[in-house]
Amino acid sequence: MRTYQHPDLSTVTIEHALHALSDPVRLDIVRQLDREVEASCAALDGGRPKSSMSHHFRVLRAAGLVHTRIAGVQHMNTLRRDEVDKRFPGLLDAVLGVKG
Amino acid sequence: MRTYQHPDLSTVTIEHALHALSDPVRLDIVRQLDREVEASCAALDGGRPKSSMSHHFRVLRAAGLVHTRIAGVQHMNTLRRDEVDKRFPGLLDAVLGVKG
Repeated sequence: MRTYQHPDLSTVTIEHALHALSDPVRLDIVRQLDREVEASCAALDGGRPKSSMSHHFRVLRAAGLVHTRIAGVQHMNTLRRDEVDKRFPGLLDAVLGVKG
Repeated sequence: MRTYQHPDLSTVTIEHALHALSDPVRLDIVRQLDREVEASCAALDGGRPKSSMSHHFRVLRAAGLVHTRIAGVQHMNTLRRDEVDKRFPGLLDAVLGVKG
């Protein structure tokens, strides 16, 4: 069965994490996952094209921000909140605390 | 005399600020300015090509992070720390606190 690769947070640079968070669609996914704990890709796509969403999830996984597990036909995503908070203290609080 | 445009921080989105900070050269400039208060472009270029540095300073100004004033033949840069901290509380502390 296919599984996704998830980097050890210690190998992720702050620039890499910032880049992943600097896109409105990806930031929206991270915001939703911060509220919803776990969500399928379909529940997070907001009607956007699947190919573009695949790209965004790939970027979020590569930056160590999101974990994706395969559950039957669904891909379930979680925010790696504790690990990210440990690697980049205060970053997600600062980024997610901003309105607009 | 030529002057630079500096946006009101209220018009800068978090995505825009994150993008500006997501480049290693720009992050290095921000780190240096956070320590040195004010510095010329020449003092901050680290031997990098002038054209590429102009681009990076332009991006940092457009994201509301850096202020540039012209002083004779020098362009003097400061980090807009107080304004950025007010607009994005905790962001610069989180980003600048990370090592590596």
